[in-house]
Amino acid sequence: MIVVLRLGHRKDRDKRISTHCGLVARAFGADKIIYSGEKDESLLESIKDVIRRWGGPFEVEYRKDWRNVIKEFPGIKVHLTMYGLPIQDIIKEIRGKDVLVIIGAEKVPGEVYGMVDYNVAVTNQPHSEVAALAIFLHEYFQGKELNKTWKGEIYIVPSEKGKIVKKRKDQNNCDGCQRPPC
Amino acid sequence: MIVVLRLGHRKDRDKRISTHCGLVARAFGADKIIYSGEKDESLLESIKDVIRRWGGPFEVEYRKDWRNVIKEFPGIKVHLTMYGLPIQDIIKEIRGKDVLVIIGAEKVPGEVYGMVDYNVAVTNQPHSEVAALAIFLHEYFQGKELNKTWKGEIYIVPSEKGKIVKKRKDQNNCDGCQRPPC
Repeated sequence: MIVVLRLGHRKDRDKRISTHCGLVARAFGADKIIYSGEKDESLLESIKDVIRRWGGPFEVEYRKDWRNVIKEFPGIKVHLTMYGLPIQDIIKEIRGKDVLVIIGAEKVPGEVYGMVDYNVAVTNQPHSEVAALAIFLHEYFQGKELNKTWKGEIYIVPSEKGKIVKKRKDQNNCDGCQRPPC
Repeated sequence: MIVVLRLGHRKDRDKRISTHCGLVARAFGADKIIYSGEKDESLLESIKDVIRRWGGPFEVEYRKDWRNVIKEFPGIKVHLTMYGLPIQDIIKEIRGKDVLVIIGAEKVPGEVYGMVDYNVAVTNQPHSEVAALAIFLHEYFQGKELNKTWKGEIYIVPSEKGKIVKKRKDQNNCDGCQRPPC
């Protein structure tokens, strides 16, 4: 199980980046994202809408008490930070285990550095928590997450030049036909 | 040479995501980012400021005529899109070559799909151009970009629990000492 904890969300400033974090968590194989900071129903709804249309399983929730989320998590706790130890040196110790992956929005409280098992850097350069999360999950799954399949209402057929989006015609996502489910 | 072209930047809506794209391009080994869409001096300055403090070489510029950027690029042209062919099937054909990597902000004009050599999907799921760019570069360099070193004014010493930022003391980035350069 991989759970992502996004700390310190600010409704006005972080909506798009926080949405990207949730979508990346889902697309790259995490099981859940927990948002902390300011409660933002529209953010949660936008992620739920993607789960409905593009498929799950994936969970999203809001928790004010992020300290308890960290304390109670029954696996390895990893904080992604540019100040940490290089991911390429650490990832072997983490792969295959249950992981809580913590990413910050506003400045991360100093106590977080001491609450986790690993402070991990995806490069020691300034860039993006969205990219750090994607690379962490990609390294954790060793690229296998790219082959993950989903059963949502819609899906894409990979294409050289065009855009091919299809509706799934199955028992759970009926497209309105009158045939009995096959 | 790897150049990233960010299409359709909107000053109000995209500033943070576009900044993340520039920082990811730099941190993951690209040589340059070109922004198109609305001209945004503060965006360019924020990237230049990171180059000054954290090191280069890395270039950033604004070009209104994005079609010419694509047409005139003397290498492989890759558009990152969820509708494209899976990166894991394509990357071997691209590695080692000069690449223009195109990422969109607002809806990408349909003509782009036909102007490029490859439309490449980093998963066929909705997520983030920031993540797609990071994973593309990470796959292009096969993870070696994580070991890249920089010579900026400041740098981080990787740390298990803390934050260690140091100023570089060398000829080009004097810290104010009176010794002759060594």
